[in-house]
Amino acid sequence: MAAPQILKGFRDFLPQKMTVRKRIISLMTEIFESFGFEPLDTPCLEYAETLEGKYGEEGEKLIYKFEDRGGRNVALRYDLTIPLCRVISAYPDLIKPFKRYQIAPVWRADKPQKGRFREFYQCDIDIIGTESIYADGELLAITDTVLRRLGFDNFVIRINNRKVMNAFALCCGLQAKDVTTFLRSLDKLDKIGADGVLKDLAGIGILNSKLEKSLTDFIINDSKVIDPLSEMASIVAQTETGEEGMSELEIIRDSLSAYGVPEDNYMFDFSLARGLDYYTGPVFETIVKEPKIGSITGGGRYDNLIGLFSKNNIPATGSSFGLERLVTIMEEKESEKNVTGNTQVLITCFDDALMKENMKAATILRSSGIKTEIYYKKTKLKKQLTYASNRLINFVIIMGPDEIKEKKVTLRNMILGTQEKLLQKDMVEKIKSSLSER
Amino acid sequence: MAAPQILKGFRDFLPQKMTVRKRIISLMTEIFESFGFEPLDTPCLEYAETLEGKYGEEGEKLIYKFEDRGGRNVALRYDLTIPLCRVISAYPDLIKPFKRYQIAPVWRADKPQKGRFREFYQCDIDIIGTESIYADGELLAITDTVLRRLGFDNFVIRINNRKVMNAFALCCGLQAKDVTTFLRSLDKLDKIGADGVLKDLAGIGILNSKLEKSLTDFIINDSKVIDPLSEMASIVAQTETGEEGMSELEIIRDSLSAYGVPEDNYMFDFSLARGLDYYTGPVFETIVKEPKIGSITGGGRYDNLIGLFSKNNIPATGSSFGLERLVTIMEEKESEKNVTGNTQVLITCFDDALMKENMKAATILRSSGIKTEIYYKKTKLKKQLTYASNRLINFVIIMGPDEIKEKKVTLRNMILGTQEKLLQKDMVEKIKSSLSER
Repeated sequence: MAAPQILKGFRDFLPQKMTVRKRIISLMTEIFESFGFEPLDTPCLEYAETLEGKYGEEGEKLIYKFEDRGGRNVALRYDLTIPLCRVISAYPDLIKPFKRYQIAPVWRADKPQKGRFREFYQCDIDIIGTESIYADGELLAITDTVLRRLGFDNFVIRINNRKVMNAFALCCGLQAKDVTTFLRSLDKLDKIGADGVLKDLAGIGILNSKLEKSLTDFIINDSKVIDPLSEMASIVAQTETGEEGMSELEIIRDSLSAYGVPEDNYMFDFSLARGLDYYTGPVFETIVKEPKIGSITGGGRYDNLIGLFSKNNIPATGSSFGLERLVTIMEEKESEKNVTGNTQVLITCFDDALMKENMKAATILRSSGIKTEIYYKKTKLKKQLTYASNRLINFVIIMGPDEIKEKKVTLRNMILGTQEKLLQKDMVEKIKSSLSER
Repeated sequence: MAAPQILKGFRDFLPQKMTVRKRIISLMTEIFESFGFEPLDTPCLEYAETLEGKYGEEGEKLIYKFEDRGGRNVALRYDLTIPLCRVISAYPDLIKPFKRYQIAPVWRADKPQKGRFREFYQCDIDIIGTESIYADGELLAITDTVLRRLGFDNFVIRINNRKVMNAFALCCGLQAKDVTTFLRSLDKLDKIGADGVLKDLAGIGILNSKLEKSLTDFIINDSKVIDPLSEMASIVAQTETGEEGMSELEIIRDSLSAYGVPEDNYMFDFSLARGLDYYTGPVFETIVKEPKIGSITGGGRYDNLIGLFSKNNIPATGSSFGLERLVTIMEEKESEKNVTGNTQVLITCFDDALMKENMKAATILRSSGIKTEIYYKKTKLKKQLTYASNRLINFVIIMGPDEIKEKKVTLRNMILGTQEKLLQKDMVEKIKSSLSER
């Protein structure tokens, strides 16, 4: 019989992989909660119509949809933002601002390739019910805190503002109806390069000489620009939208400075467009210089999205961490270090008749917070030691009839290869102090 | 526009609900790991054929199945056991015994009703690759530890053994082919009562006088039986299977005693059948006396199940906690207590010009582990205090120009209604000591 397969684009996470994932999730949770965010969970399955028409033409094709046994059109969650909007409209009494985090899988029927999966985790923070840009600044401070606490040192948060870009496009002579098209072109800069974007805009027929000059001078070739904020201000500040957008960027700059975010960790970058149409204000994403794996966070303000679900429009801003890419980076960083297993102590089985003593000793260790296994059956000691060694277990306890009579245990340090007999009542302290020395 | 609905049988978990769920999950994780279990995660979606034919006729109808865009027949995970078996066969090099836990949602297209959902969490522990019954004993010790640490005091773990029941049925004159039918009838005891089971067995035509007498004397009316183990031994011990099963139950009794599980917390109960066909040895489930919500854990040994997936049969045993029912019980217990929010401190906004000071103070509090929010915009203090009070936030910090000049903060205890001015550098200690007094 053929062994059953796993679906393409889906993954099993064995314990060693899980340990890294859980550590990242637990750190994020701690930081999100320290900023006053609270957990939310929503179903993996939604009515299809809740998701339809929200993700653009390309996204729409990637939704996992089907008819359930009751004839309902249902779909697997595509992201965590749209379900959040549904929740906000379903529970109008939620106290605002409502700050929630959600760390959960989403599904997209995308073509699987290196680093792209059909089932992957998103880790979202959103602040609903305030138009204050301090909320956006807070999201970026959290981004910086998470990445630095994970030990990342070569990331940059790119920051832009849709209002500014709208004003910029109009100031460069584009018509309002062409702004979205312009941003979609600009969004491809990383993929198709400066020439590609200009060719693209020309092809659509919206490239004029003013736009070309402004783009070339200080957006596409932004490395030459010393103070992009004041440069942009000189172009857009005479328009109301432009002025509003620029002052929002200044609030963000002030926030990042107050939060102590190092200046190397962020930049204002007017070439950042962000694909989704629903953003209305600040937009942001984080890239790492090494390894080159694209953005590891992304988000922005979406003040009109909840209005699709409820009569009252409610301002909102949010950001999402891509767990899969964070894991990839962490694994590269950690492959250099020594890995130890989850379990800290193995109590070997000398004889079935002595198993009761093993279980009692295990209970003492476990209640002191030491992760302890017992070996379930009598077999050669060497085999049991090999098991401990393969499982990367640090300590082995051997309890034969002699040890039990003397109320002692033999404690073997598998890493140092040393071994000693000590009183059972001293084993917890001995193991704990050895573990903390490591 | 009508607000989009949530699917029937599915749930949103708002922060207050999530807090209870996360606390239970985190305690379980800690205990599972203390026994040497490691985390595993598997896809929510599997090939349909992996799940088909594993859950009996009734279960089969409840699988969420559909054809994906690539024409594959896929299904949402129905439980965590079958995906585990697939993993075991897919990674033959996993070190055995392999002890894993998985806490994750599963889906069943069941008729929704009170306490029964279409999406719900299972929390599974399984030990793969050992036939030792000490492994089964360990699962029960974990069950007891988790429930006691959650503060449960009125539960009973019911324990039986399929080998014993097979021997019992044969000793009572049933034919081998009728044993499964017999167990399925017995499984309905709680629902249809003793008379119902006897009628059911008679209806199928497998009730004889010996079976009726044995059943009546000491299984169906087990409250009269003083020592069910020796009673059962007297019936089945002359058969090989019966003897084996009885000695397994004795290993379990010895284990529970060595682990210090109170005798009130478990019982050997020969009326326990457990629905699934794949069990081969010990079976167990936990019931609570109050509230009456059915079993909260269930499991058993399934030595032949992995053989369905791989050439080599591999012994295995496992147990599953039902998160939803644990949450229900916890919520009933906690509704009496005072609930406080997740966030501990709110820093009010006196004026936008002072926001930088608020962010700096928030950073100090957060880095000391105090969960802190800032209010995002200037508004009447009363409104900000009402927000803190509605969110059940314990402390409010007010920083006006006077406070900032004096390097002080005004700290308001929302629970006691007291307020004091203190130096900014003393606020962390003051808040921490007040929180620990609660």
